[in-house]
Amino acid sequence: MHIEIQRNADMSITNQIYHSVLDQIRSDFLEEGSPLPSVRKLSKQLGVSLVTVVKAYQKLEQDGFITSVQGKGTFIKKTKKEVVEGKKGSSSYDWQLSVEDYLPRSQFARFHQVPEKIHLSSSMIDPGLLPNRYLEQEIHRMLSKNPRVLSKYGEIQGDKALRQAMVEYLQKMNLSTDPENILVTNGSQQGIDLIARTFVGPGDVVVMEAPTYPGAIDVFRGRGATILTVPVDSEGMRVDLLHHLCDKYKPKIIYTVPTFHNPTGAVMPTKRRREILEIAESTQSLVIEDDPCSEIYFDRKPPAAMKSLDKEGHVIYLKGLSKILAPGCRIGILAASGSIFKRLLAAKANTDLGSPLLTQKAIIPFITSKRMMDHLKKLRIALKIRRDLVLDILSQHAPEEVSWFLPKGGLNIWLTLPSWMDTNHFLVETKKEQITFLPGAACYPADQENHHLRLSFSYMNEQPLTQGVTTICHLLQSAVYLKNKQGSSPHF
Amino acid sequence: MHIEIQRNADMSITNQIYHSVLDQIRSDFLEEGSPLPSVRKLSKQLGVSLVTVVKAYQKLEQDGFITSVQGKGTFIKKTKKEVVEGKKGSSSYDWQLSVEDYLPRSQFARFHQVPEKIHLSSSMIDPGLLPNRYLEQEIHRMLSKNPRVLSKYGEIQGDKALRQAMVEYLQKMNLSTDPENILVTNGSQQGIDLIARTFVGPGDVVVMEAPTYPGAIDVFRGRGATILTVPVDSEGMRVDLLHHLCDKYKPKIIYTVPTFHNPTGAVMPTKRRREILEIAESTQSLVIEDDPCSEIYFDRKPPAAMKSLDKEGHVIYLKGLSKILAPGCRIGILAASGSIFKRLLAAKANTDLGSPLLTQKAIIPFITSKRMMDHLKKLRIALKIRRDLVLDILSQHAPEEVSWFLPKGGLNIWLTLPSWMDTNHFLVETKKEQITFLPGAACYPADQENHHLRLSFSYMNEQPLTQGVTTICHLLQSAVYLKNKQGSSPHF
Repeated sequence: MHIEIQRNADMSITNQIYHSVLDQIRSDFLEEGSPLPSVRKLSKQLGVSLVTVVKAYQKLEQDGFITSVQGKGTFIKKTKKEVVEGKKGSSSYDWQLSVEDYLPRSQFARFHQVPEKIHLSSSMIDPGLLPNRYLEQEIHRMLSKNPRVLSKYGEIQGDKALRQAMVEYLQKMNLSTDPENILVTNGSQQGIDLIARTFVGPGDVVVMEAPTYPGAIDVFRGRGATILTVPVDSEGMRVDLLHHLCDKYKPKIIYTVPTFHNPTGAVMPTKRRREILEIAESTQSLVIEDDPCSEIYFDRKPPAAMKSLDKEGHVIYLKGLSKILAPGCRIGILAASGSIFKRLLAAKANTDLGSPLLTQKAIIPFITSKRMMDHLKKLRIALKIRRDLVLDILSQHAPEEVSWFLPKGGLNIWLTLPSWMDTNHFLVETKKEQITFLPGAACYPADQENHHLRLSFSYMNEQPLTQGVTTICHLLQSAVYLKNKQGSSPHF
Repeated sequence: MHIEIQRNADMSITNQIYHSVLDQIRSDFLEEGSPLPSVRKLSKQLGVSLVTVVKAYQKLEQDGFITSVQGKGTFIKKTKKEVVEGKKGSSSYDWQLSVEDYLPRSQFARFHQVPEKIHLSSSMIDPGLLPNRYLEQEIHRMLSKNPRVLSKYGEIQGDKALRQAMVEYLQKMNLSTDPENILVTNGSQQGIDLIARTFVGPGDVVVMEAPTYPGAIDVFRGRGATILTVPVDSEGMRVDLLHHLCDKYKPKIIYTVPTFHNPTGAVMPTKRRREILEIAESTQSLVIEDDPCSEIYFDRKPPAAMKSLDKEGHVIYLKGLSKILAPGCRIGILAASGSIFKRLLAAKANTDLGSPLLTQKAIIPFITSKRMMDHLKKLRIALKIRRDLVLDILSQHAPEEVSWFLPKGGLNIWLTLPSWMDTNHFLVETKKEQITFLPGAACYPADQENHHLRLSFSYMNEQPLTQGVTTICHLLQSAVYLKNKQGSSPHF
């Protein structure tokens, strides 16, 4: 079991053990019924006192995550109320459990799986809103003319024509860059990963918003980073608090989603963007500006990217396309400069020798055509309708104890429930109705808050969206009713 | 500058510094004219004595890699005979040089770039030998029927139909597995990388063949592994020496290319495969069986994969398709079992959330058709002709001081030159004739041998292949002639 202890962290070691185990349960690394190491063994492994481990295990047991069986050991609790019968019958793979790994968590994956029925958990786009037929025809034309696209490795940096096309595309968003400073990635997730593997090592300080994009947490945790968090208000990352933090710690990386922040939808004004950049300049830090969907605005165009203000190469800008076009191609780009860029390029080579040429060539004709801008216009309209639909249902049916951010763009709405609710448990209830959402805890790198949830309104069309959100509201109402009536919280 | 010192390594610290700097020069991280840290600074950074650093710098200077300029410092030597004028004019990105990274090397990338004229340096397949037209038609048919392939994320594990198709494909190679144990990757390079990021950390012991595939070295070095090497004979990794090594060290990973070993072309017999597996069982290690091209045999079918002998989940099998079909799709798979598989799947999620659906769906119709086997048959014939051509030219024109392995399959021939030759320098000469090859040093994780080179005969067709290999032979003849005449080696 991979448990990382940071002795100089703000969090107590007991709490670190507690959260590590929880992270692994939520990442599905520890299955129901799996044994935990004995208190003695873990205390020895981590070099901490027996009492510290005992306290962590007690807290995990109190909170219902693990069970101690007298004389048998400690196990991950089964939710299906089966009695823990000790270790399962041994298999020939049992030896593998002793192979140590370097994966502290992988929570996002669990919520990103292909949907069942009413999928409000991951911010994917409804395939019906994407120009698949046009793209398919363009691909046919491109491949008939040049079938050798199938038989060539592309450049490690990415296809030059695509890099050029992306420069022109970004120019329309008031971001000037150069094909030489663009690296094509397999979506932004790979961009985050490349940066982390290149620049983040054990104990390096990474500052993230709280809440933030869970996929990024998984990556930084995997590099052994010391993650510090800054809360978010309606204008994104609280720069005043970032200042305080940076007086005390020197961050290596500041990760932010300034436009339509994930999960809250907040938009950071230019002033704040500039302030963060100044902080990065004074602390010689790198800023990762993750931009999944600044194209999807509902009122007015958001401010230009922080990267457009960057003169000294502090910002690494990530533009994923999967939220607006052809997620089946998984194309993203990264823009950076100087030796930072060069090193990221080397990391890309080590990782996979470059993205597939087919997927890169596939999207060029479309994104360089006038159709791209028309498509984005339509997409904004369609998603605004869905957002408004969800807002309507929430205003009408959500209990008054529930509040939410008003997202001015993007794909998500962030709900805050009464503090006694735990959305990890609430998810079990909604799943019975075949409805999924993203429990808020997944969005916190540390000190998880359990009473939030993220609804993505981009994947389902009006009918199931209405049904899903309405049902969630009704389930919330029942919970609140029960709580008020009984004076005690229901089991979620 | 990233320099990693392993205090318990067999190599002296002076040598470790020497090789670290060399690795970075060869990875292009340190450009010509770049300053090195002062002796004082580096000795402080690494916590080693001044003398140790001085010795390393002296050796680097003697070997012609760096230059000391009185009163200015130490610089990477310029090959273009320009006088080092001290630091170049400062740019606004200079601050970036102080950002520490975790990339000790990325050498393979330099030799994997898209070719200029006569490209014998990377084992890519001539696009003319691949069924691009058929594939293109199949893709058109598939996308017309189901354009939504473009608008969907696939499963993180990989498309189920592709995993099923790969199971059937592997079955034809006498390897039985299951779609649940298959993970689709962006080529084998990503497979190696996923394993390394999941299971290899600082100081973990990785055993590799020497020479071996440079892309794998780059990855393991990047994880801070302690790499131990085992020489290769005509039957692949020397198991007797592996035994000795494993008596002393407990490897976490044994990386091998048992079939048409890269770069030598050696084939490991079944007996030896079994022995390595037994070693892995007794040391509780993982074996990475990298299989880029066992389909490309010239005489007889090679033995079944080591994975087919594996009962307890020790072997992680990597099958890249880019050497035989559609490198523009960059599809590979990884087969593993038990918790090892599960953890690799989580790593894949963190890395990129899954490979693009388009490239996966693109190849399914072809690989499941009868055409695939016909294609492989033709490919074997075409490549055998090229191999024989190269062997003929070598027998006729290579100096008698040059020897080579006879490859019974694969894409490469491994040449051993007289020990006074350095193929890194020889490459400068052949590049003047627009001919590239892979210098042997890139294939050694440590204790680099400089007098080997790898010729890939798979990319160029007969005419340029003949020209390239003939020219290399003539250049080698001149070098040997000069050496014999002058009694001193020419500058390469």
